Amino acid sequence: MACKLQQVGFLGFDVFGTVVDWRAGVARAAAPFLERYDIELDPCAFANAWRALYQPSMETVRTGQRPWTRLDILQRENLERLLGAHGVAVDDIPEQDLAELTRAWEKLDPWPDAVAGLTRLKRRFAIAPISNGHIAGMLKLARFGGLPWDAILGAEIAHSYKPQPATYLKSLEAAGFEPGQAAMVAAHNGDLRAARALGMRTVFVRRPHEYGPDQSTDLEAEEDWDVVADSLEEVAGVLGCA
Amino acid sequence: MACKLQQVGFLGFDVFGTVVDWRAGVARAAAPFLERYDIELDPCAFANAWRALYQPSMETVRTGQRPWTRLDILQRENLERLLGAHGVAVDDIPEQDLAELTRAWEKLDPWPDAVAGLTRLKRRFAIAPISNGHIAGMLKLARFGGLPWDAILGAEIAHSYKPQPATYLKSLEAAGFEPGQAAMVAAHNGDLRAARALGMRTVFVRRPHEYGPDQSTDLEAEEDWDVVADSLEEVAGVLGCA
Repeated sequence: MACKLQQVGFLGFDVFGTVVDWRAGVARAAAPFLERYDIELDPCAFANAWRALYQPSMETVRTGQRPWTRLDILQRENLERLLGAHGVAVDDIPEQDLAELTRAWEKLDPWPDAVAGLTRLKRRFAIAPISNGHIAGMLKLARFGGLPWDAILGAEIAHSYKPQPATYLKSLEAAGFEPGQAAMVAAHNGDLRAARALGMRTVFVRRPHEYGPDQSTDLEAEEDWDVVADSLEEVAGVLGCA
Repeated sequence: MACKLQQVGFLGFDVFGTVVDWRAGVARAAAPFLERYDIELDPCAFANAWRALYQPSMETVRTGQRPWTRLDILQRENLERLLGAHGVAVDDIPEQDLAELTRAWEKLDPWPDAVAGLTRLKRRFAIAPISNGHIAGMLKLARFGGLPWDAILGAEIAHSYKPQPATYLKSLEAAGFEPGQAAMVAAHNGDLRAARALGMRTVFVRRPHEYGPDQSTDLEAEEDWDVVADSLEEVAGVLGCA
């Protein structure tokens, strides 16, 4: 099979949703917590509600309302906000339990195709997260799930959150690749739009159940991305890395 | 075998000299260059002379004489300085040849025990360079030699060169480990002294031929480092990761 993306030597990956299933992992960690504190919320709904606070919290950094703040700090704040909104007296919950639940974001299973797909892609390309996650979180996710990254780039390298250009550009600069020598791999059209605007190539991976059975966004490619696939193994096949 | 360093979850590695053989690799790249430009220097002596400019050039950054500058820039400047000192008219050499020779530092063979040792150590520990090399250089070295890092940390993360404390401390902070949960692995006593002063554990790997047959420094452990070994495979054995 002919090799697509011939000029590309580096693949940057979105991670939450594209490589790992955050919803199932967060729900798994939340279930005993919700039970212990008698919070009447379905664990999957809880995961979605927590995730819903993710973009607004990063937006305060993007707009300069607050200085650079790592994602683990934002996730912890969002957890407290979410619990408060459901009438939970957060101050009564031991610090250790809140910290442990926040670490759920570091213990997420890769999608079933992810490790095999990344392993094949790594034969041809340098691979690294360009995620909004912080380095320690990405490192722990990698060790938890066996993700074979060559390096960890992304928001903490750039002190900037996607889709701001700096997150992509500073990551690529650190890796030593021009935008035209790199592709962004993501399950989110917005991520790819931002990457394409900077000159990166684009790989869309459909993850129609990232948000659960009722997902309504990112079900399909919204532009003519360079590659569109249903799994990272399919991406590896299309890119001639079988 | 009992596990040593029970509290340790992260190993930070010096790379040039400890993991890869810079002298042979730089000499290999220099040989055709020296021949082409009629420079009467032994390739190994050339490699050592280039390396000898490494510490003084970083010192200008450490002291604040100049702002943060990546190692590839320093190496290129040092190359021009070295050639000039041998009467070479650097301006007459095509840019492409100078750039290509500078990239020798990204194409260095791992010591024979390095990949096997790192692979075994990775089963128990998170592993990453805490090197003075820049991220792109470390990434290219990793792909050239098959070094299975979990992440790439070090000088560029910290904007500071070892043995300055920030290089170690900011790398560990990015990785999510306290100094007491981490060990530094190096063939250089000075590197380990700096790491120990910050509370890190220490692993000394003897590389008595790093500088060639006449090496006079770092032949032996100069303090009671936590582990002293002759190879990374021996380190893996001592740390119970067989």
